[in-house]
Amino acid sequence: MPTHPIVAALRGRLGTDVPLATDADVLAAYSHDRAPWLAHGAPLAMVAPGDVDGVRHVLELAAEHRVPVVPRGAGSGLTGAANAVDGCLVLSTHRLRPEPRLDVDDRLVRVGAGTLNGEVKQAAAGVGLLYPPDPASSAFCSIGGNVATNAGGLCCVRYGVTRDWVRELDVVLPGGEALRVGHTAPKSVAGLDLVSLLVGSEGTLGVVTGATLALTRGPDRLVTVVASLPSLAAAGDVVLALRDRPEPPVLLEIMDATTIRAVEELAHLGLDVEAAALVLVQLPEEADGAGAAGPAGVEDVCRAAGATEVYATTEPDEARALLQARRLAYEAFERRGLPLLEDVAVDVSRLPALIAAIAGVAERRGVTIGTFGHAADGNLHPVILVEHDTPAARVLAQSAFDDVVEETLALGGTLSGEHGIGRLKLPYLARQLDPVALRLMQQVRAAFDPLGLMNPGSSLPA
Amino acid sequence: MPTHPIVAALRGRLGTDVPLATDADVLAAYSHDRAPWLAHGAPLAMVAPGDVDGVRHVLELAAEHRVPVVPRGAGSGLTGAANAVDGCLVLSTHRLRPEPRLDVDDRLVRVGAGTLNGEVKQAAAGVGLLYPPDPASSAFCSIGGNVATNAGGLCCVRYGVTRDWVRELDVVLPGGEALRVGHTAPKSVAGLDLVSLLVGSEGTLGVVTGATLALTRGPDRLVTVVASLPSLAAAGDVVLALRDRPEPPVLLEIMDATTIRAVEELAHLGLDVEAAALVLVQLPEEADGAGAAGPAGVEDVCRAAGATEVYATTEPDEARALLQARRLAYEAFERRGLPLLEDVAVDVSRLPALIAAIAGVAERRGVTIGTFGHAADGNLHPVILVEHDTPAARVLAQSAFDDVVEETLALGGTLSGEHGIGRLKLPYLARQLDPVALRLMQQVRAAFDPLGLMNPGSSLPA
Repeated sequence: MPTHPIVAALRGRLGTDVPLATDADVLAAYSHDRAPWLAHGAPLAMVAPGDVDGVRHVLELAAEHRVPVVPRGAGSGLTGAANAVDGCLVLSTHRLRPEPRLDVDDRLVRVGAGTLNGEVKQAAAGVGLLYPPDPASSAFCSIGGNVATNAGGLCCVRYGVTRDWVRELDVVLPGGEALRVGHTAPKSVAGLDLVSLLVGSEGTLGVVTGATLALTRGPDRLVTVVASLPSLAAAGDVVLALRDRPEPPVLLEIMDATTIRAVEELAHLGLDVEAAALVLVQLPEEADGAGAAGPAGVEDVCRAAGATEVYATTEPDEARALLQARRLAYEAFERRGLPLLEDVAVDVSRLPALIAAIAGVAERRGVTIGTFGHAADGNLHPVILVEHDTPAARVLAQSAFDDVVEETLALGGTLSGEHGIGRLKLPYLARQLDPVALRLMQQVRAAFDPLGLMNPGSSLPA
Repeated sequence: MPTHPIVAALRGRLGTDVPLATDADVLAAYSHDRAPWLAHGAPLAMVAPGDVDGVRHVLELAAEHRVPVVPRGAGSGLTGAANAVDGCLVLSTHRLRPEPRLDVDDRLVRVGAGTLNGEVKQAAAGVGLLYPPDPASSAFCSIGGNVATNAGGLCCVRYGVTRDWVRELDVVLPGGEALRVGHTAPKSVAGLDLVSLLVGSEGTLGVVTGATLALTRGPDRLVTVVASLPSLAAAGDVVLALRDRPEPPVLLEIMDATTIRAVEELAHLGLDVEAAALVLVQLPEEADGAGAAGPAGVEDVCRAAGATEVYATTEPDEARALLQARRLAYEAFERRGLPLLEDVAVDVSRLPALIAAIAGVAERRGVTIGTFGHAADGNLHPVILVEHDTPAARVLAQSAFDDVVEETLALGGTLSGEHGIGRLKLPYLARQLDPVALRLMQQVRAAFDPLGLMNPGSSLPA
């Protein structure tokens, strides 16, 4: 196949220092994110500019040549939002990775799109501050992707999502114009909220190249509790009870028996593989209600719900090890086969109903579903696992996936709590959103991208 | 003047139960918000539908007749965003005021646009919950206006702004289509964030008719502290010191000597009229660091900064009385003359510099400026007071106003922390925002309102 003229044009504009690949093995690696199952197209090239000017050149030439662009962060997405389409440029932001620049007085940090979430946390921790958004993939996901998906993670129950921590964004628009939106001050109302609009837009409005993030002081000492429950329903009771406190926990996660066993098999952490469910809770020590006036202690709440084992620690290393069990959940399933990952969310009061509905789907369809997730947000990650990859097994798994969506929508839930729509959930989007809302979103998208070149086929119907 | 045909069309469509006024005295009352100084136009009529269908009829007929619409909440806005333009319909949402509908399990409340902020707080308090956004005008401002301006208020330092508490919005678009956007679940990423876009859009994108708001559990017991400081600079020191704690205060306000005296004159609360500044702090009792391990107590922090008097209380009634002093600040100036109200905000570290700059403007221009505000958000409300209304006094006040804007922008600040842009700050907006950002905002506005009928002349340049 002859090379598309945009490749030579890019080389001319970007010089030889910017990675620009057209060979099949590189393209294969950059053609999809971490979602299995989804098909992807064949890109013309992968380009990875190292600065804003490079990104501007790419988007300018793409507009000139009418070539679609699929922006890409660290590739840890789970919905195919970074999957290539045929004849596109994959624009990877992984080289936009300057040292985080801290402003301790105002608790801010300026980062590049390619800066890893874990690097931001580390830089903040170095000055006694906290960057709360904490996807399980923190060690290898980047801020650009976190912004594109409005990533959540383990601490949302107390700290909210990525959108709540973004003050400014540097963006390159389709066509190549660069601008900064938002403001560093804690409060600003000046024009429409373009920051919130860009967060969660999955590369459909432009390419985020950098961000100013807010930081906070974290609690001085945390208690981490892990409890073994005799049923998922009992775990749901613990979640509802712990939520009803004056001070929210920092995190409140559940894992079912299938997940516990998969993680234990992978990592040999000594988890209670007899438990029907584990609940993981972390909260500031002073909020663990020891006094008569305060709320019941977390251990007591767990035991009242029938916990067979409860373990609590204030040792940071031990706490990290316990959380590691939860962080490894998806990876544990990846090792065991082809995982079809859900990310549904409901009002928290409906969590027990959603848990029961998922169990019903597994039984009805005769498939393995492991469920874990951010219980206090009403956000679960049921994983439908295909251990032996056959066409029939895939069809079956897809039916179970459809059923989980169906059950979630019937409970008034949402298709995605935090992973986004991408290509995985796009076929269902019109089931959830008002058609007028969809049309408005498309019009807003067209205002940013009149040529329709940014991430086509993802996130919103054409 | 003959009546415009839209008036008869509205009467026909809405029936006789819907207030539809064309008489001069009613129109005068509905032609402006609470911002003095600004001119306003002469509307064709004021219409106040009592339900969503009524709003749809109004916007449908407005589009048909190409008549501009100025939406209006309770009229407590401070930037002229609800000021009429010539030949417009004023669409008042004050009758969209159903009983708040609580969902205690999921900590939500459904309200109408006309529901007062204070009514939401009261309904929430009735079930032991808290609706945090707390404009000083809480008793008479409505949720529709709070949403339109992204209202802040007294509790932002801990709880954020209105946008952080809105889960769903019911909207009628220009042309009359109605839809609901957002989701009740704590986390949802499904399409672009139209909720955040509508919040703060000041009636330029559509008419908000209702909202689902999130509630939370408040702290069980609060300590309220008021301290007299010997200078505004010392008050600034207290703010910076109190901000640097693991747990943020619920509120942290300052008032300067001019404001203290104006309030005392109005309300005779027994304020320390000798103080150069008052600092008001409220925080959860358990966060007032009594123990050796915890942070220094608030009283100690104030005394270390040179406080001459410190008074602390845990009595709710007494606390309310102390806060009342702050809530009355603007009203106190309204009683004394023509107040030109600012709402500038900076990064909190620059608060002392902003305070000094404002004092410099007052001295240089020879005008009275009373300053109060949400210090922990970096958000101040300097009031330039014209006691005797003459053309020369107005010119002088306007120059001081311009200077404050100038000084704020020079400090990297923002034109508005919480009141919005409206008509008051529109002439300055292009000074703060990137021209490309302005263009994007206009394009987004056009996507919602292709005929340009919604609140023309407000909030964004044409």
